Amino acid sequence: MGALSDIKVLDLTRVLAGPYATMVLADLGAEIIKIEQPVKGDDSRAYGPYKNGESAYFMSLNRNKQSLTLNLKAPEGKEIFKALVKKVDVLVENYRPGTMEKLGLGYDVLKEINPRLIYASSTGYGQTGPYSRRPAYDAVVQAMGGVMSITGQADGEPTRVGTSIGDITAGLFCAIGILAALHERQRSGLGQMVDVAMLDCQVAILENAISRYEFTGEVPHPIGNRHPSIVPFEPFSTQTTPLMVAAGNDRLWVTLCELMELDIAEDPRFKTNPLRNENYKALRPILAERFMAKTGEEWQKMFDEAGIPCGPINTIDKVVTNEQVVARDMILEVEHPVAGTTRIPGIPIKLSRTPGEVRKAAPVLSADSESLLAEYLGLSPEQIADLRDKQVI
Amino acid sequence: MGALSDIKVLDLTRVLAGPYATMVLADLGAEIIKIEQPVKGDDSRAYGPYKNGESAYFMSLNRNKQSLTLNLKAPEGKEIFKALVKKVDVLVENYRPGTMEKLGLGYDVLKEINPRLIYASSTGYGQTGPYSRRPAYDAVVQAMGGVMSITGQADGEPTRVGTSIGDITAGLFCAIGILAALHERQRSGLGQMVDVAMLDCQVAILENAISRYEFTGEVPHPIGNRHPSIVPFEPFSTQTTPLMVAAGNDRLWVTLCELMELDIAEDPRFKTNPLRNENYKALRPILAERFMAKTGEEWQKMFDEAGIPCGPINTIDKVVTNEQVVARDMILEVEHPVAGTTRIPGIPIKLSRTPGEVRKAAPVLSADSESLLAEYLGLSPEQIADLRDKQVI
Repeated sequence: MGALSDIKVLDLTRVLAGPYATMVLADLGAEIIKIEQPVKGDDSRAYGPYKNGESAYFMSLNRNKQSLTLNLKAPEGKEIFKALVKKVDVLVENYRPGTMEKLGLGYDVLKEINPRLIYASSTGYGQTGPYSRRPAYDAVVQAMGGVMSITGQADGEPTRVGTSIGDITAGLFCAIGILAALHERQRSGLGQMVDVAMLDCQVAILENAISRYEFTGEVPHPIGNRHPSIVPFEPFSTQTTPLMVAAGNDRLWVTLCELMELDIAEDPRFKTNPLRNENYKALRPILAERFMAKTGEEWQKMFDEAGIPCGPINTIDKVVTNEQVVARDMILEVEHPVAGTTRIPGIPIKLSRTPGEVRKAAPVLSADSESLLAEYLGLSPEQIADLRDKQVI
Repeated sequence: MGALSDIKVLDLTRVLAGPYATMVLADLGAEIIKIEQPVKGDDSRAYGPYKNGESAYFMSLNRNKQSLTLNLKAPEGKEIFKALVKKVDVLVENYRPGTMEKLGLGYDVLKEINPRLIYASSTGYGQTGPYSRRPAYDAVVQAMGGVMSITGQADGEPTRVGTSIGDITAGLFCAIGILAALHERQRSGLGQMVDVAMLDCQVAILENAISRYEFTGEVPHPIGNRHPSIVPFEPFSTQTTPLMVAAGNDRLWVTLCELMELDIAEDPRFKTNPLRNENYKALRPILAERFMAKTGEEWQKMFDEAGIPCGPINTIDKVVTNEQVVARDMILEVEHPVAGTTRIPGIPIKLSRTPGEVRKAAPVLSADSESLLAEYLGLSPEQIADLRDKQVI
């Protein structure tokens, strides 16, 4: 039994931020009823690449969920939706602000139906403020939120983070907000609204960049892959994979020189970290040349044994076979009824007594409509067939 | 009253991942007792820049917390610690695996003292697996976890994300694990261990990169700031700030051409998105030249009115004054007893009925030792003075 196995979630989310939030809840045991529009489903079902017509993108975000198609514009669809709202703990949606109200299904309406409902919204800019109604994309939010301005090669172009952290961090903060509201509901008996904006989350993950600017007045810029004040603490190319090497103090510096058979540990230019910073331009080529003498794997093994923090810059093919990643069950195989056996990321929250679980692959569109409508609303096979004919589901 | 105002957390974390997790809980109302080593405190108190001797780094991660100094190596320190463990709901630590056991304070010991305790650990590689005991840094974990391999200019060098997402995502997943375990405790009456590894979290945020590789066999590489399949969907320089422009469909393409007074909407090379992809090299310079005719602010205003998603690539100074960021209370002023008035990031989880709150700035070292020891353990001023003399606190 997962930690959240008593929680039922009505999930109207599409694409990334919202589905990420409900995936995290699903992994920990929550029951997710994913509402999708009939015929087309979640937009991301159309994002390639495909395996037997099933989307990689969709599959990576929707395991452990059930799919119920429902036309929220049809009066019968709205009625079914409202009946379901009575029976769940949480609703999550990531429409633009105003969309649910236009459907007549805003929080003000739904909380009358179920005062215990936690209503969570994940949007680009939030439910309030001058940009509230603007459309957002991960790339735009990464740009506006500042993370691009501090990502990139030293003094190079601002650079988008290669994974959609605009969406993903919004999904994570949204999951936290939902769980906090559920916790509070135990005391008050009441639900509430959780309003999470991608832009807000970008500001929240800038960590000390804001304080540094506030304290010094200097605007932070991309600093590349080097540590701003420790040497050596940066990637080096090898005969194979490049290695990120982090010799954080003078003791590790001496160890590194010994291991690499470099006679420079006591060199007056490099003896202390301040000196190594000062004479970086002389030191870098010496180290870079030496690193090319062996493979990344050989250096890694030697450094590990000596306790020098380092790791390869892994490409995705190396990540999915990395021994620690595999040992931690962070790559799992799921059996999808259409796409077949596929590897997907595991669950990074390891609970000792009630561990999370990948119980099933992402659902085929509408796979659970019949069973959910029967279980939750007691509809008969005939009633359900009728709804299908009318394209309500 | 915050959503988590009935939750007490014993916080042994230092630097970033752990403190981020407990900050999120603190913002939502949890009481955080931050245990720090006497005299020196959290390592990050030594990270510059400083204002009146107080660290920007530390201040950005420790608002809403109380500071109790405690020497966990001293027998009296251990006793005080165990007495506190009886009175809290959650313990969070981010030592390397084995450290708490060496202190005689591992989960096996503490759960005997308090079976309802949620014990959360945030580490580089987790409590299990072959790399478990290795030291980790954000840069090493970003390298090993794959995100660097997909971040960077198109076909350029792998690039570290400019904010420490290795630490921050671990902090967020850790907070989710704690809240899920608290939820489960309502049913079972029992605590459990939450084991979160930075490397696992990096795998978990790769989103569709793993599925794409799995479906196609192609190893993902950095793709820069352009959308992989939509044109125009990339940054353009202007007379002032560069703009990220995302004209996601043919209708927006026509609107964009009209607004920019470019007579190319119907140009046979650019009429559809596939054509714009094919003739990107001809299109890019036309747009790039035209964008230089106005300021970023002028283009932004025109695009907003026309509903074309776009936003400036803001540097940090622009982020903290952005009208939406300010309207959402994402930049707050706190009054620090030593550093004075300082701006810090706000709370991205907006709860309607029990909103989070920044109640106080980060604590001065040991600021709350007296009051906490009196309140939790009933110690007298004389007993506390004695503990100070012995450097137990």
